[in-house]
Amino acid sequence: MQFSKGHGTENDFVVLPDPDGDLDLTPARVAALCDRRRGLGADGVLRVVRWAALADGPAPVPGVEWFMDYRNADGSVAEMCGNGVRVYARYLAHRGWLGAGELALGTRGGVRTVRLDGDEVSVDMGVATVGEHSTASIDGEAFPGVAVDVGNPHLACVTTVDIDHLDLTRPPGHDPALFPHGVNVEFVTPVVDGEVAMRVHERGVGETRSCGTGTVAAVVAALRHARRETGTVGVSTPGGRLRVTVTDSTTVLHGPAVLVAHGDLDWESLD
Amino acid sequence: MQFSKGHGTENDFVVLPDPDGDLDLTPARVAALCDRRRGLGADGVLRVVRWAALADGPAPVPGVEWFMDYRNADGSVAEMCGNGVRVYARYLAHRGWLGAGELALGTRGGVRTVRLDGDEVSVDMGVATVGEHSTASIDGEAFPGVAVDVGNPHLACVTTVDIDHLDLTRPPGHDPALFPHGVNVEFVTPVVDGEVAMRVHERGVGETRSCGTGTVAAVVAALRHARRETGTVGVSTPGGRLRVTVTDSTTVLHGPAVLVAHGDLDWESLD
Repeated sequence: MQFSKGHGTENDFVVLPDPDGDLDLTPARVAALCDRRRGLGADGVLRVVRWAALADGPAPVPGVEWFMDYRNADGSVAEMCGNGVRVYARYLAHRGWLGAGELALGTRGGVRTVRLDGDEVSVDMGVATVGEHSTASIDGEAFPGVAVDVGNPHLACVTTVDIDHLDLTRPPGHDPALFPHGVNVEFVTPVVDGEVAMRVHERGVGETRSCGTGTVAAVVAALRHARRETGTVGVSTPGGRLRVTVTDSTTVLHGPAVLVAHGDLDWESLD
Repeated sequence: MQFSKGHGTENDFVVLPDPDGDLDLTPARVAALCDRRRGLGADGVLRVVRWAALADGPAPVPGVEWFMDYRNADGSVAEMCGNGVRVYARYLAHRGWLGAGELALGTRGGVRTVRLDGDEVSVDMGVATVGEHSTASIDGEAFPGVAVDVGNPHLACVTTVDIDHLDLTRPPGHDPALFPHGVNVEFVTPVVDGEVAMRVHERGVGETRSCGTGTVAAVVAALRHARRETGTVGVSTPGGRLRVTVTDSTTVLHGPAVLVAHGDLDWESLD
């Protein structure tokens, strides 16, 4: 079984090419593969499959050849991953399967448009919907923020506090009435010279080096804080720098996507 | 650059074949390669080099063809690694470079004899020297133990306390006069039906899933606790099961060694 390993701002993935949908990718195999000592290790698996060959998923959209079948490290299915889809596009280009510089990809979260531009890959993340004001709390300290829906729920808090010193080893407190299924929480600095810094706590995971949807939510909140609704903002995350463009109709996530290694897996060694 | 990824009881390594010693393996490259998100991720790197081609190391021993150039994940050089040398031997066999079932290998800790036996690989770990009695402490609780030198310093504590519940998130306390450069600390259950369980805190690293020299030290201490000096004992570690044979003249570590994947690295992507 062939594989590649890559990352986008240190959000890392094992890519499994399976154009004809032959692979029996059980949750146990995904978990073994993503185990960082027994397997190859990754935050998730990107199965590269032709949409027409996808056995369990949304019906193919005419003209969209490739589908990103994304699995979390625990083997569960996820709809979308902003850093994952950028690594996926980098892989298609590496294989020569990305005809032009721009391509529509199928995901469980809908069709996404990706574009390669040198070292960067950008992806259309769709509309980010701003919701109610709410508050996150760390050790009793309250951080005012705003709910942002980017396909998944976020609470993005713009703060002048030094975010490097926040304790994100435990989930920040949130309003369970507003976020009954939990929430991803971003702490983001105000926009200065078109740049912000961000840290993110992902629900069910913990603090991560970077989060694609979280970066979009943070920029939407930071623009609002600056009395703006659209624009492009650079975002420094612990894993690297991304940029987000917010327009009236959509959001776009730009940033690096790197392939580190290519090879062959021994599935039996993972059992 | 070719690589393989493998592990012995979840102590994991990137193997780099460099038979002719052409590779410029800088500490920065090792660290980037071992980074679990930006690189491939591992506890260390095993460079597979012919001893005659080794530029910086001990002088070759006649008749010993291969040398294990071991690097820690931070890029520093280490002398020996009981799990690493077993994965190294598995790799030689995979490549067809291990002529017989038994082979002498060069390491910075001296020549070691490895032997393949089905799924298991054993390695001669040399004499383990028992030193003074001493005490480790966790949260004020004292654990009597004994110093064991296996090329590196250990404090092995046989205890009837439930070791699963020990807090090893911080280094156990030890006598700095006896161990001025720090010490690896093992907590091991008494021998029952030829088996023990062990947890280990490695100096400068933290708790690990398994440790080859620590497993040897634990068995030497457990045998002494049972009023024996020699024998074979099975050791359950969090990463899997190993066995140690102690004779009058040496110690041997037996256990699984698995290769998970093989491929090609893109060095430039790691810079």
